[in-house]
Amino acid sequence: MDHGIQANSSESNPSQGHVSHLALDIGGSLIKLVYFSRKNDVSVDNKEEKSSKETVLVSNGDGKCPVLHGRLHFAKFETSKINDCLEFIQRNQLHLGGFQHHGVPGSEKSIIKATGGGAYKYTDLFKEKFGIFLDKEDEMDCLVAGANFLLKTVNEEAFTYTNGHKDFVQIDHDDLYPYLLVNIGSGVSMIKVDGDGKFERVSGTNVGGGTFWGLGRLLTKCKSFDELLELSHRGNNRVIDMLVGDIYGGMDYTKIGLSSTTIASSFGKAISDNKEIEDYNPEDIARSLLRMISNNIGQISYLNALRFGLKRIFFGGFFMRGHAYTMDTISVAVNFWSKGEAKALFLRHEGFLGALGAFTSYEKHGFDDSIVRQLVQKSPVSASHAGYKIHGPLNGERNENESIECSVYVN
Amino acid sequence: MDHGIQANSSESNPSQGHVSHLALDIGGSLIKLVYFSRKNDVSVDNKEEKSSKETVLVSNGDGKCPVLHGRLHFAKFETSKINDCLEFIQRNQLHLGGFQHHGVPGSEKSIIKATGGGAYKYTDLFKEKFGIFLDKEDEMDCLVAGANFLLKTVNEEAFTYTNGHKDFVQIDHDDLYPYLLVNIGSGVSMIKVDGDGKFERVSGTNVGGGTFWGLGRLLTKCKSFDELLELSHRGNNRVIDMLVGDIYGGMDYTKIGLSSTTIASSFGKAISDNKEIEDYNPEDIARSLLRMISNNIGQISYLNALRFGLKRIFFGGFFMRGHAYTMDTISVAVNFWSKGEAKALFLRHEGFLGALGAFTSYEKHGFDDSIVRQLVQKSPVSASHAGYKIHGPLNGERNENESIECSVYVN
Repeated sequence: MDHGIQANSSESNPSQGHVSHLALDIGGSLIKLVYFSRKNDVSVDNKEEKSSKETVLVSNGDGKCPVLHGRLHFAKFETSKINDCLEFIQRNQLHLGGFQHHGVPGSEKSIIKATGGGAYKYTDLFKEKFGIFLDKEDEMDCLVAGANFLLKTVNEEAFTYTNGHKDFVQIDHDDLYPYLLVNIGSGVSMIKVDGDGKFERVSGTNVGGGTFWGLGRLLTKCKSFDELLELSHRGNNRVIDMLVGDIYGGMDYTKIGLSSTTIASSFGKAISDNKEIEDYNPEDIARSLLRMISNNIGQISYLNALRFGLKRIFFGGFFMRGHAYTMDTISVAVNFWSKGEAKALFLRHEGFLGALGAFTSYEKHGFDDSIVRQLVQKSPVSASHAGYKIHGPLNGERNENESIECSVYVN
Repeated sequence: MDHGIQANSSESNPSQGHVSHLALDIGGSLIKLVYFSRKNDVSVDNKEEKSSKETVLVSNGDGKCPVLHGRLHFAKFETSKINDCLEFIQRNQLHLGGFQHHGVPGSEKSIIKATGGGAYKYTDLFKEKFGIFLDKEDEMDCLVAGANFLLKTVNEEAFTYTNGHKDFVQIDHDDLYPYLLVNIGSGVSMIKVDGDGKFERVSGTNVGGGTFWGLGRLLTKCKSFDELLELSHRGNNRVIDMLVGDIYGGMDYTKIGLSSTTIASSFGKAISDNKEIEDYNPEDIARSLLRMISNNIGQISYLNALRFGLKRIFFGGFFMRGHAYTMDTISVAVNFWSKGEAKALFLRHEGFLGALGAFTSYEKHGFDDSIVRQLVQKSPVSASHAGYKIHGPLNGERNENESIECSVYVN
């Protein structure tokens, strides 16, 4: 795959306009896109990018290198509506933002980096539609590369969430590893990360975002994942969950440290209420479901962190969507099960780890690819605060589809 | 509580007939009863005991002690239908099978051993109805005492379940401890057991039997837990679960050891099917739900066993009900996550651990209580095969409400 490949970045092929380095992560539920554009590139259709509050990263520069201004763009689509994604790519000519493969004379093909199971499943579709070849990068490789990229490059990326309060965490690059990366997509992967490209998928669970959305859709007739999350925000889980106090007549079970409000059995009250599904408020159902799944993921994550003595657990994937209650439940679960020993940390660009990993893999193959290489390698600024500063308000409730405006050094 | 108590077994108070030692375990979903009756005691109404195939334990005896013939009876009721339970107790005069407390002159009261949260919640109800006092035994104490009782006393109590095949396990009493006891009731408790009365509740999960039945009731409109289990037996989880192959276009994700048929996301297919709840077969929903919950419990159990280096995990509680598919899923989960290192074991009288523990606690307090003491202490026969033999067919699909016919030594 690496033989005879020549880079074809936006710099070397002006016909592409200013868009380059499209990378895809095609999961079971969502397709995530990352691509770079030069500043003032007005040809890019941003209507899919709903976030109005952007995180703006501005380079201080050190005066030694030319500076290239641009943006990293993020977009997502439901995998079941892949045609919307193809149209978006077509409209913005993103499929030209890959590189050319000149391996065999006459067989030139455009190549786009892609990861996730859909990179295999939809190979033919992309070939037929655009004549491009999806160059598959391993899903776990990409998740880890994306997480490491964010943690090393973007300032104020990681934060804790406790009692409704968000605290950004300074990542000391010398003390980053090892950590547990928990990516909550349709399913959940748990990866012990020991360094760049050094990792092991140690566990996972099939109770993930797809379970929340799938069960939630059946139970509440919600039309979207976001609507379901929104519902859960207004619900009360005590209506359907069986609490310790429900069993113990309102008392705590103090001997083993369970308060009367601890959930003994998720959805346990539904066994005896003589209510049908429509007799419950969708809000309460959504809340119980969210607590059940968040708590479960938090618990299994902690147990895996414990196995390997990992103090920090970073949660990524589109399940959170910056949703306060979800993060709070996961934080509480990790804190509860670890008795305060382990910490749940969240990432602002949580949903794009895989896509970012695929994006950075353009660089990995040694192409003439100064934009990515510089962004990745020359701006590890969060430790020293020397390179980037964040301007603009943080948007805690909705990180998705934010673009990162950045000025990068060019050799 | 232990001061001035005199035993009042069936031997010392003929007016009680032959029933003695009623013990209750009142959980969030179910009330479990255990009591002893002398043989030929026809006054006991067995119509609640639906099991026609009984396990019959016959003592070989050693000729040194008189033998008392009788039965340990098991019965259960839904906690929400506690009046049915009270009627059953009344009809069979079981409430007389406790002991009298003569602590303060004139304040004699009949005492029944009880555990579970309902022992607190329903104290007043039992006092009003029968004038009896529920003497509360700690729930975890009872679960452990019940499990140890069964493992030491009843032959062919524990078994593994692999590929549809049940294998009874000989328990070497010198090699019983430590083990992990996982009791799956409405919620799940996980207890590290180091000996008689030596244990620690190390974990648990709120995704348990109450979740299966509560969610299952809402999703399928089933009328009973057993009906839901029956449905699941005929269902196909692949209709609703998102498999690795669904994401990877039918391929395995071999690099991390996930086959195409591995469940990536329980209920994940429901996110994109454009189907309403009524468009799915209840059988398929029940199957997905059962796999989700069984697999989850198996995984969390294994992770806790791993923490403490426990090779054997005994599963109890009414969730299983001897249901082949449930046991198989839990076995597979434990085997999968432990890479064959840990074993899931099941108990024939799985649902009555707490009630049996409360039952044996009559003896613990040192009453003149030869029946229980002998049954508990003089018949640890499974190791040597000397005391009991099992006659009659094993009833793998339905262990509940079996009575154990036994002949016991009397001092």
